[in-house]
Amino acid sequence: MKSEIGIGLLGLGVVGSGVVEVLISKADKLAKHVGASLVLKRVLMRDVSKGRAVNLGSHLLTSNVAEVLTDPEIDIVIEVIGGEHPATEYIEQAITNGKHVVTANKEVMAKHGYGLLSLAQKYNVGLRYEASVGSGIPLIATFQQDLASNEIWAIHGILNGTTNYILTQMAQQGLDFPSALGQAQELGYAEPDPANDVEGIDAAYKLAILSSLAFHSEFDAQGISCQGISGLAAQDFRYAREFGYAIKLLAIAKRQADTVEMRVHPVFLPENSQLAKVDGVYNAIQVEGDLAGRLIFYGEGAGALRASSAIIADVLTISRNICRGLSNVLDVQLNQKLEIKPMSDIETRYYFRLSVNDRPGVLAQISKALGDNSVSISSVIQKESDPLAHTAELVIMTHSAREEAVQKALGEVKQLAVVNEVSSFVRVEG
Amino acid sequence: MKSEIGIGLLGLGVVGSGVVEVLISKADKLAKHVGASLVLKRVLMRDVSKGRAVNLGSHLLTSNVAEVLTDPEIDIVIEVIGGEHPATEYIEQAITNGKHVVTANKEVMAKHGYGLLSLAQKYNVGLRYEASVGSGIPLIATFQQDLASNEIWAIHGILNGTTNYILTQMAQQGLDFPSALGQAQELGYAEPDPANDVEGIDAAYKLAILSSLAFHSEFDAQGISCQGISGLAAQDFRYAREFGYAIKLLAIAKRQADTVEMRVHPVFLPENSQLAKVDGVYNAIQVEGDLAGRLIFYGEGAGALRASSAIIADVLTISRNICRGLSNVLDVQLNQKLEIKPMSDIETRYYFRLSVNDRPGVLAQISKALGDNSVSISSVIQKESDPLAHTAELVIMTHSAREEAVQKALGEVKQLAVVNEVSSFVRVEG
Repeated sequence: MKSEIGIGLLGLGVVGSGVVEVLISKADKLAKHVGASLVLKRVLMRDVSKGRAVNLGSHLLTSNVAEVLTDPEIDIVIEVIGGEHPATEYIEQAITNGKHVVTANKEVMAKHGYGLLSLAQKYNVGLRYEASVGSGIPLIATFQQDLASNEIWAIHGILNGTTNYILTQMAQQGLDFPSALGQAQELGYAEPDPANDVEGIDAAYKLAILSSLAFHSEFDAQGISCQGISGLAAQDFRYAREFGYAIKLLAIAKRQADTVEMRVHPVFLPENSQLAKVDGVYNAIQVEGDLAGRLIFYGEGAGALRASSAIIADVLTISRNICRGLSNVLDVQLNQKLEIKPMSDIETRYYFRLSVNDRPGVLAQISKALGDNSVSISSVIQKESDPLAHTAELVIMTHSAREEAVQKALGEVKQLAVVNEVSSFVRVEG
Repeated sequence: MKSEIGIGLLGLGVVGSGVVEVLISKADKLAKHVGASLVLKRVLMRDVSKGRAVNLGSHLLTSNVAEVLTDPEIDIVIEVIGGEHPATEYIEQAITNGKHVVTANKEVMAKHGYGLLSLAQKYNVGLRYEASVGSGIPLIATFQQDLASNEIWAIHGILNGTTNYILTQMAQQGLDFPSALGQAQELGYAEPDPANDVEGIDAAYKLAILSSLAFHSEFDAQGISCQGISGLAAQDFRYAREFGYAIKLLAIAKRQADTVEMRVHPVFLPENSQLAKVDGVYNAIQVEGDLAGRLIFYGEGAGALRASSAIIADVLTISRNICRGLSNVLDVQLNQKLEIKPMSDIETRYYFRLSVNDRPGVLAQISKALGDNSVSISSVIQKESDPLAHTAELVIMTHSAREEAVQKALGEVKQLAVVNEVSSFVRVEG
């Protein structure tokens, strides 16, 4: 029986430092759980001279990745560098060197998950990635094990805490997007370059990972239609409330016959739905399956401790298996070949906000453009916004319509002389 | 490699029939997942002549339990009889005969979980019980694996769908308890004898199971203080709303130094809290840990399909391990010796509703009785309820106080000549 499990760590940023902190402060608890000590053998960091607020002997630090990936005393490599490169290559090398790997890297798992899992299977090692989606919220193991007997119908996720914080501030404080973003940046909830979060790319990576587990198929994350939240204005939240909705950035996957509808964009959600009540930096993932029904998993989707909870859980699972002589290989159950449904084919309801000339007959012209494309209106709100310029704000909710028809109709609406601008465009869910 | 996993089923009630249905209708999917067919070999039912709405050959049915427990072709025994006896003995016999066991039985696992898990360890078989709490909501594996590195601080659970349905009807429709119970019985959400649900006993079993996983200690479910919902009246919900609260039956466990506060009773919950928004037959379990933070797991906590989701997940896990030659033994990590904190020692805030004489000085007398016991009042609502009888309804919210002091104070309040009755008594949480 092994008395020691050697750990190598790639990356000593916020999450990496959290992992080190837990490995040190909980050493006894973890050893008891595993039946062997978890010993940190080597830590890769860019500049070892940079003093980090972590209680680590300098002999453990290296800027040479080979010292981690080839160290025979290291059983498990934890990757928390983030980003596609060189993290992907490091994980590949760790696997081919016979190391088990635990990663928090959503971009790598979204883009290269299938290849890496197959490689791990070939080299008879484990590759676990619980922290890659929802941080400390148990999701990956949940799909792999607890929901295994279910046909999954749909996933609706608030998968990005940064955008949910910004949207909550816009809804509750009446802020516009730039102010809410600025506030989130000051608090450290948004990065200096926030594009990955606010444009929905981060959520799309996570959706690709969950969908591949849920639907047993490989998906190209870059094929997921993505719309961010930067186009939303303060008044969209007021109109949403008038109609009885909240606005959330949702990642949506819905199983159809042999396609899956997959998209990330802001939605109007009925305000009494559970997901509409998820505020601030919290994440929530709703899963619908034929047996389990509708489940929701809720928690904080970011932060060093939250990620450590998932990373250390993965390390414990692998370590216990090593100690008991059990295999860590996960079967890669990607036996379906499903395509992402083209965005133009989805059907849903829509909200538009338009700036129009304030004169009789405007609504008739717009209704006709929509009607000509089989898009029918369910409600309209018209408010005088600028009596001097004779412009008004017109808000339209449609019945269910096909995205392609809606886009064509909106193109025609934009051409109308009486229409100054289509200011907002949000899909309605539920 | 085994090409077939033999399954024995104890009990063909609602849940048992659901399990049979899934094993038959999803045979291909399950076989692909496991790498071997799951074959139902024998089903115990009380009266085999009773035609059940299940597509089973009569040669599979037996009323002789030994035919299931000793059948050498059976690898896994699923127990869905429910109740303490004879289910406990059947599970014991299955284990000592070398069978793996999957059970949905909360009463057995709450009362005999430690002994049975130890027995399973001794006989080198698996004993899994995901369906025993929250039905299809993944919780047991979550604690065993995903939260393993966490110190758990607290569990707050809406663990019983029957009572949550009744409370929701009382809150939304203004029904009194007997009408809401009657409605739940008509819809099949409450049993003809509803005591186990409405008195909180069912929730206490589930709390004992979760607490033993969370705190790594054995707890006596019968030591959990339990108060049901039958004493609540329609006006308690109106007052709760006036104060900004919802009323829920909560199962609460909070870790202290070497005790755990464990109790099941109705509570006032702030109406904007996530658990307050869980309505109808849904369950929700909030877990707070040092690393993962605050997590909530939400879903339907009852029904044949929901339970089947968890039961079949357990069967799949065991079957895959059998096929891959891996052990199914779970380490029983009950290495802590924690006591349940005496109810008299807990500290919280309280709501009382009293019927009093409608005359000056009544509140002074009541305040004095409370104050003499160090229980201080935070708010009071007084309403004239019966001008003819000169009685009024008095509603009191207290600051945080010790249960023992509150009970003593209430005893003194009841003795006051001006007090007709203490009509309601609800603790406040959060």
